[in-house]
Amino acid sequence: MPVVSNTELSGRRLEILEGARRCFAEFGYEGATVRRLEEATGKSRGAIFHHFGDKENLFLTLAREDAARMAQVAAEEGLVEVMRDLLHHPEKHDWLATRLEITRMLRTDENFRARWQEHQALLDEAVLTRLTRNAAQSRMRTDVPVDVLHVYLDTMLEGFLSRLASGRSVEHLEQVLALVEDSVRRGT
Amino acid sequence: MPVVSNTELSGRRLEILEGARRCFAEFGYEGATVRRLEEATGKSRGAIFHHFGDKENLFLTLAREDAARMAQVAAEEGLVEVMRDLLHHPEKHDWLATRLEITRMLRTDENFRARWQEHQALLDEAVLTRLTRNAAQSRMRTDVPVDVLHVYLDTMLEGFLSRLASGRSVEHLEQVLALVEDSVRRGT
Repeated sequence: MPVVSNTELSGRRLEILEGARRCFAEFGYEGATVRRLEEATGKSRGAIFHHFGDKENLFLTLAREDAARMAQVAAEEGLVEVMRDLLHHPEKHDWLATRLEITRMLRTDENFRARWQEHQALLDEAVLTRLTRNAAQSRMRTDVPVDVLHVYLDTMLEGFLSRLASGRSVEHLEQVLALVEDSVRRGT
Repeated sequence: MPVVSNTELSGRRLEILEGARRCFAEFGYEGATVRRLEEATGKSRGAIFHHFGDKENLFLTLAREDAARMAQVAAEEGLVEVMRDLLHHPEKHDWLATRLEITRMLRTDENFRARWQEHQALLDEAVLTRLTRNAAQSRMRTDVPVDVLHVYLDTMLEGFLSRLASGRSVEHLEQVLALVEDSVRRGT
């Protein structure tokens, strides 16, 4: 019986994730069939589902990777910097559309929504921690509750994702971000 | 040969549009098959496609209706009021998800994108006219160009659509809208 080391296992896991991300980005959530996932990852369906259970879980693992990366940027530099990062990396925009395609599932599938929210919690925590700290240090307006500023920034991020994923013009978006930053800093 | 009056024709057209909107809202763009469109509208595929050519055109006609309605509100009360209106009509949120499902088509199908943009032009014009007039009357900040404020509001609207369509909490959204209004009015 062949012995497979932990390093090889985690290498395979990463290869599957990278291939799956390309596949979802190209064909969308529905369009990423098992056959296409096999082709994109170079792995059998057996290997893919051994590591990730099912397609939904594979997708949510990728969404969790996004959330973790965004959380890191958000913790250090804020949510506006997360948007700036998206704006400057058009190669990521193909994948963003996939996030919008699952909107209906988020509303109609309670189980999926719960799992999605669990994966996004990392980002929420990072943003809230930073906003609370900034407010305490008077580096931010305090006439609007932190929770409201959080939802404001989060809604703007959703709008950014939607705009970039649909390939609309990015003209003025840098200035829009400056305006968003300003409106969070400046109070009455 | 039966004579069909213009009134009957336009009545049929309206019935098809209403049924089709319900059908897209329930099953999504892809899921709204010809058979389901027939069931939802109570009309044969022949009648449906006689009036609307194809499914894409049927969908774009509904999107044009949205744009016209939003343009009317935007012209009179501004884009923030359009968002407030969406917030207060949860029965419309099912349909909003369909708008997100076509994100990929907007990016990858040039012809579809051109037709979509043509249909959205009504709304863009209404918003731009109002912003320009408000700026001239000093009812709005003038330190940020009108085009930037337009993209800012439009991105926020996209975020609103996305948030409402995915069934996320609407908590704090009223206060978020007040913040958006304030950030457009107040300059340095």
